[in-house]
Amino acid sequence: MNIETLRWVGSLPGHVELLEQTRLPGETVWLAVRTVDEMRDAIYRLAVRGAPAIGVAAAYGVVLGVQSLTDTSRENVVGCAREAAATLAKARPTAVNLFWALSKMKTRADRDLARGFDGPALVHGLFEEALAIHEHDAATCRTLGEFGAALIGDGATILTHCNAGALATGGMGTALAPIYTAKAAGKQVRVFADETRPLLQGARLTAFELHAAGVDVTVITDNMAGRVMFEKKIDMVFVGADRIARNGDTCNKIGTYSVAVLAREHKIPFYVVAPLSTFDPDIADGSLIPIEERPASEITNGFGVRTVPEGVKVYNPAFDVTPARFITGIVTEVGVITPVDAAHVTAALEKGGVRTRASTARG
Amino acid sequence: MNIETLRWVGSLPGHVELLEQTRLPGETVWLAVRTVDEMRDAIYRLAVRGAPAIGVAAAYGVVLGVQSLTDTSRENVVGCAREAAATLAKARPTAVNLFWALSKMKTRADRDLARGFDGPALVHGLFEEALAIHEHDAATCRTLGEFGAALIGDGATILTHCNAGALATGGMGTALAPIYTAKAAGKQVRVFADETRPLLQGARLTAFELHAAGVDVTVITDNMAGRVMFEKKIDMVFVGADRIARNGDTCNKIGTYSVAVLAREHKIPFYVVAPLSTFDPDIADGSLIPIEERPASEITNGFGVRTVPEGVKVYNPAFDVTPARFITGIVTEVGVITPVDAAHVTAALEKGGVRTRASTARG
Repeated sequence: MNIETLRWVGSLPGHVELLEQTRLPGETVWLAVRTVDEMRDAIYRLAVRGAPAIGVAAAYGVVLGVQSLTDTSRENVVGCAREAAATLAKARPTAVNLFWALSKMKTRADRDLARGFDGPALVHGLFEEALAIHEHDAATCRTLGEFGAALIGDGATILTHCNAGALATGGMGTALAPIYTAKAAGKQVRVFADETRPLLQGARLTAFELHAAGVDVTVITDNMAGRVMFEKKIDMVFVGADRIARNGDTCNKIGTYSVAVLAREHKIPFYVVAPLSTFDPDIADGSLIPIEERPASEITNGFGVRTVPEGVKVYNPAFDVTPARFITGIVTEVGVITPVDAAHVTAALEKGGVRTRASTARG
Repeated sequence: MNIETLRWVGSLPGHVELLEQTRLPGETVWLAVRTVDEMRDAIYRLAVRGAPAIGVAAAYGVVLGVQSLTDTSRENVVGCAREAAATLAKARPTAVNLFWALSKMKTRADRDLARGFDGPALVHGLFEEALAIHEHDAATCRTLGEFGAALIGDGATILTHCNAGALATGGMGTALAPIYTAKAAGKQVRVFADETRPLLQGARLTAFELHAAGVDVTVITDNMAGRVMFEKKIDMVFVGADRIARNGDTCNKIGTYSVAVLAREHKIPFYVVAPLSTFDPDIADGSLIPIEERPASEITNGFGVRTVPEGVKVYNPAFDVTPARFITGIVTEVGVITPVDAAHVTAALEKGGVRTRASTARG
């Protein structure tokens, strides 16, 4: 049983509980989220984070925006849902799952509107859709785990960056799912976790959930990844993703690109593990992915102590892009994409029923 | 005028003052060091750090061990000097300048003994030698600055890792000396400083001294180095060294190797800047350099709060080795070694009058 990251409490009206990730590993606190603005803030300040998890959180956020209206007319429900979606869409720019989930919610509202549903039925439909997005994410994680575990040999040591585990999803994780699945199948697996500055998701979250699950995990600072590869301690790298372009270029937590370059230098397989909802078929390559820049204080005042002198400039991009040529394979719920290029990505998206420009053009 | 890192106060008997680097950038505190044990502890806990600076500190440490003896016989002075050197040699294992400076002190004692000096004259000789090591280091830094500045084009942006500046030496620095010299010559220079986990010497020390000197500096986390290179923000890399093998393999602060691999991937020149005292002619290649492993708490409790869950393993090598093939050139006080290989390193050492066994024998 993996750690739970977020949950809907009650039926309608209800609220969301998020495991407050900024407080981990010191404290396990559940945060009650009752409004759209609270959800936007929770996403922005990384109380909930990880591309799949913020997709689920955003879907629930739309429900929070429509569940307690006084005016339950169709027009007002749809208007409030749209407003909630617009607010939530501004929380963070990079992870495409946020927009994917909001788009799923919009599609549901449009369908139910066309069916002639009244306001309360529309609200119920949105609630059902959010629950379905959450359940779909959990099921997808299990499938990613199966496909990814097949790549892991008994006794393997895996390096991972940031947190792409249960704490990043509505299920057992993306990059960590194969590790949980391999372990459950009786394989010996060891993990090195980059601490992942500035917000230390590797040290605080990946180490927390792997250790809780009984997985052998060792934390290193980000700048040790090259050394441990040089020492031949690492057999493979698994990371998650925030957005993947049509050609396979992968945007993920800052530092992923450095790990990919180092992995190639040491001839270590480098795998991205991500659901199809993380692909952005509208984007031809990684240069078009918007990279969120976060506040300087994440670097200058990490964890309460000022570590950079006053007046010194800081640069804090939250993500980077790893070009497809560094990626051995992308593990998805329809199989492992390899080699990673536009043709193979497109084929996987079509297999998964995702509309692409290519398929639109052909169809 | 650069920041002062350490100084001898008074004549004989006197004491050493160290700028307490664990307290920077928050507080500028001078630490009085009066005994050999205090000096060993100051070196171990990085109150003074940087290969050249700990060489100077160790030389002064020997003086602290002999300056106030009741029994000032030749035998007792030599015995206490030897004991002080043995204690100081155990402070840290990787930076060879520590052993180089202690070896210089031993050579001086042997020479003065052979001249028939009495105890007090031997003490005075050791004091003179320590002052000479300090002055030699300052002069060497200036020469490194001249040779290195010649490599820097007007408008260049330089990435550096850890701190190899005034705070790491008895002078203006190694890797930062060319930057100060280029700026003094009127060139526009910008610097990106890796924060350098776990102890943040880049954020705390490099940013501090460059900012104080009016150099345009931007701090990034270590895992952003790949991204800023990808964004074509970096023209060249300058780093220091803790020990350089006969073939040019360079041991330096953990993370240097990752930066070197990334620099080569982006076709960015990667320079090591180090005095000849950092070379270890007894060591054929980098695999023979002892790598200090530091306490786990530097990673788990790096910011005064616990960031790694209890019970999780940590790996904390303080240094890594960058193979010579990744290094564009090594800037020394006898010129720039390039290409970096055993033949060119040997030629530079001979030019600098460095002998092998005799001059580097461990005390």
